Amino acid sequence: MTSPAIDHDRLLDRLQRLGSVGRTKSGALTRLALTDADREGRGLLVGWMREAGLEVRIDRIGNIFGVWAPACDTADPVGIGPDGADPVMIGSHIDSVIDAGIYDGCYGVLAGLAVVEALRQAGAAPARPIAVAAFTNEEGVRFQPDMMGSLVHAGGLDIDAALAAVGTDGRVLGEELARIGYAGDLPPGAIRPHCYLELHIEQGPILEAAGLAIGAVDSLQGISWQRVTIEGAANHAGTTPIAARRDAGLAAARVIAHLRDRVAGANAGTLATVGSLRFEPDAINVIPSRAVFTVDLRDPEEERLQAAEDGLARFLEGLAESEGVTVATERLARFRPVRFDPALVELVAEAAERRGLGHRRMTSGAGHDAQMIARIAPAAMIFVPSRGGISHNPAEFTEPADLAAGADVLLDIVAKLAGT
Amino acid sequence: MTSPAIDHDRLLDRLQRLGSVGRTKSGALTRLALTDADREGRGLLVGWMREAGLEVRIDRIGNIFGVWAPACDTADPVGIGPDGADPVMIGSHIDSVIDAGIYDGCYGVLAGLAVVEALRQAGAAPARPIAVAAFTNEEGVRFQPDMMGSLVHAGGLDIDAALAAVGTDGRVLGEELARIGYAGDLPPGAIRPHCYLELHIEQGPILEAAGLAIGAVDSLQGISWQRVTIEGAANHAGTTPIAARRDAGLAAARVIAHLRDRVAGANAGTLATVGSLRFEPDAINVIPSRAVFTVDLRDPEEERLQAAEDGLARFLEGLAESEGVTVATERLARFRPVRFDPALVELVAEAAERRGLGHRRMTSGAGHDAQMIARIAPAAMIFVPSRGGISHNPAEFTEPADLAAGADVLLDIVAKLAGT
Repeated sequence: MTSPAIDHDRLLDRLQRLGSVGRTKSGALTRLALTDADREGRGLLVGWMREAGLEVRIDRIGNIFGVWAPACDTADPVGIGPDGADPVMIGSHIDSVIDAGIYDGCYGVLAGLAVVEALRQAGAAPARPIAVAAFTNEEGVRFQPDMMGSLVHAGGLDIDAALAAVGTDGRVLGEELARIGYAGDLPPGAIRPHCYLELHIEQGPILEAAGLAIGAVDSLQGISWQRVTIEGAANHAGTTPIAARRDAGLAAARVIAHLRDRVAGANAGTLATVGSLRFEPDAINVIPSRAVFTVDLRDPEEERLQAAEDGLARFLEGLAESEGVTVATERLARFRPVRFDPALVELVAEAAERRGLGHRRMTSGAGHDAQMIARIAPAAMIFVPSRGGISHNPAEFTEPADLAAGADVLLDIVAKLAGT
Repeated sequence: MTSPAIDHDRLLDRLQRLGSVGRTKSGALTRLALTDADREGRGLLVGWMREAGLEVRIDRIGNIFGVWAPACDTADPVGIGPDGADPVMIGSHIDSVIDAGIYDGCYGVLAGLAVVEALRQAGAAPARPIAVAAFTNEEGVRFQPDMMGSLVHAGGLDIDAALAAVGTDGRVLGEELARIGYAGDLPPGAIRPHCYLELHIEQGPILEAAGLAIGAVDSLQGISWQRVTIEGAANHAGTTPIAARRDAGLAAARVIAHLRDRVAGANAGTLATVGSLRFEPDAINVIPSRAVFTVDLRDPEEERLQAAEDGLARFLEGLAESEGVTVATERLARFRPVRFDPALVELVAEAAERRGLGHRRMTSGAGHDAQMIARIAPAAMIFVPSRGGISHNPAEFTEPADLAAGADVLLDIVAKLAGT
């Protein structure tokens, strides 16, 4: 075996090619889960996996696994190993948000593929299989909850419930999965990871601000997603005295302003975002009878996250009283903060150190598939810098040198864990 | 000539029949201007006008005029009278908002028709023609500005500009008008009113609260409509520190809360409403990059209305600074407060008094076609009570006895003005 090395140019080229799939007429990248664009992106990935000699398996929620098991002498390299040869899994996702950047998710999957290619090219014969995973619907824009594929894989969401999810466009997930040809037959969770690694852009400003190349991610914020529906009364904008109004739109605005003022004032690591909001009847001269909006709360500490949820609930109670509206909340997703596996996190830091790369331990602000897989296997994440901290936006960018460094660190760790 | 009398039962029956046109599957009344539902409502009205012996004329903006000119010996009763026999015009509109009530607008048009029928039935031969008008697109929900047909009739909006208006559904007004068969050939303004009367439900709580049957409307609030577009930056909800956010949705919420706090605090007759609001990209885990919303400001005093507009402009300037967003405003409509013709208003009060009906002078909170026609002829309005002050809502309701009383007052005034 020669010394394995990532083909950086090919990795960068594939990022661009995958990032060109799902462009709208205006040029925006929108590759939502289980759309025609997602099918096209999946096709590209599966083709590259097969070219790399991986055995491609699709499970019932559409997760794609490319498995390399050179040391196994069975025709089916999946889920086997009487001696416990579960695979080292490298994963992330390739679905995107609306008007997205090209790195989020795709980088981790394509870097995983590059790692396998580097090991094969070097003539390595790892004792453990290596599986490259692309999990279905990580973003949760079209279907909820987000991180769905990895959640199903980890046994946290029943496959039938997931398949029955109804999208923002009214389509049923299971039908869309079959329509694009990715309703596989592998039972969810069949490929059990020995351990799990996810390489990802930071999507935040910390590494860039500190001038560091690698984040050894030791924990992940807890996430609380709710949908709030406020019902007031539609009435004429020109004749209804202010005191007689039951304005659902105003009530929603008060919630948004309150959330910001609360988290900005507390200065305690809680984040609050209202990203989606609709008024009904949504007419210029009619007081809104209904406002439906989402609340995204995050905190690395479970107690503070609960306090934020409780604070919101109390504010909504008071609002119902003061504005004469009714308020209903629905929980869309709730994940406690996650602590990643200390030994794996240490491996990340050591690998960065050995490569001479500046690094630090850090928390992930975003949710990732790794937090789901952490339920069933030791897991950790590797972050690389995001320019300006920008993500979920066409301006999302990571320097080629940083992308290369992250893949190199991933290669070193996987080579060690898989026993080359 | 016998004493003329309104057929109240027929008036009420026609209100119900017209109110049944434009029902959605769920039963909601939505008869937006120049839709198929509007065509069906227009067809019903035109049929009733012809049955009543009126000459029906359609102008280029689709306004419908039913003209009765018994004293004119010309084949064309429209726009004639060397002795100045311009018609007494009774008008309103039959288009509706989304999920509307059945009285707004339709009541004034159908009562006008009932007045002509009562005079004909009684054998009256008025010296002046009487014209019943249904003006196009009063509500302004689909096409802007609102009160469009009467504004064009009064010469306040060029006919070609009006025909080029693009609707919320992307359709062009002139094309929709032709599609539904109401692109007439009468030049706008050809039928010049000698005077104009509009009978309407109050759409506010004042008459009901005072226990009065008739409002002699002597003025009408000024109206200012703007569209505000706020641009921030889309970014990840979980990784973007609060201080680094440029959240267009939060900025919009601050405007809504500010407007309410300002008008509630001033207690000075200004009304402010944000009825329509959209976020982009409108995703749960993405900070909104764009918020587009409308602002509806009204005040019976021009100076206060201007002060409210100026206050909003200053707030938006400060917001751009404090939230790191850019703000653009677009004027959608602007009408100064209107004073109706004192002699006509006095006639309304006298007619109510003679019928033994409780009455008062009052201001109209809503915009009406009468404010446009007041530019070219003496005009006034008659209000009847709205239960609970509710309008633009399926719960809109006026007692049959109040509907009857309003039509009776209208009959008395028109009989006098037309010279029977």
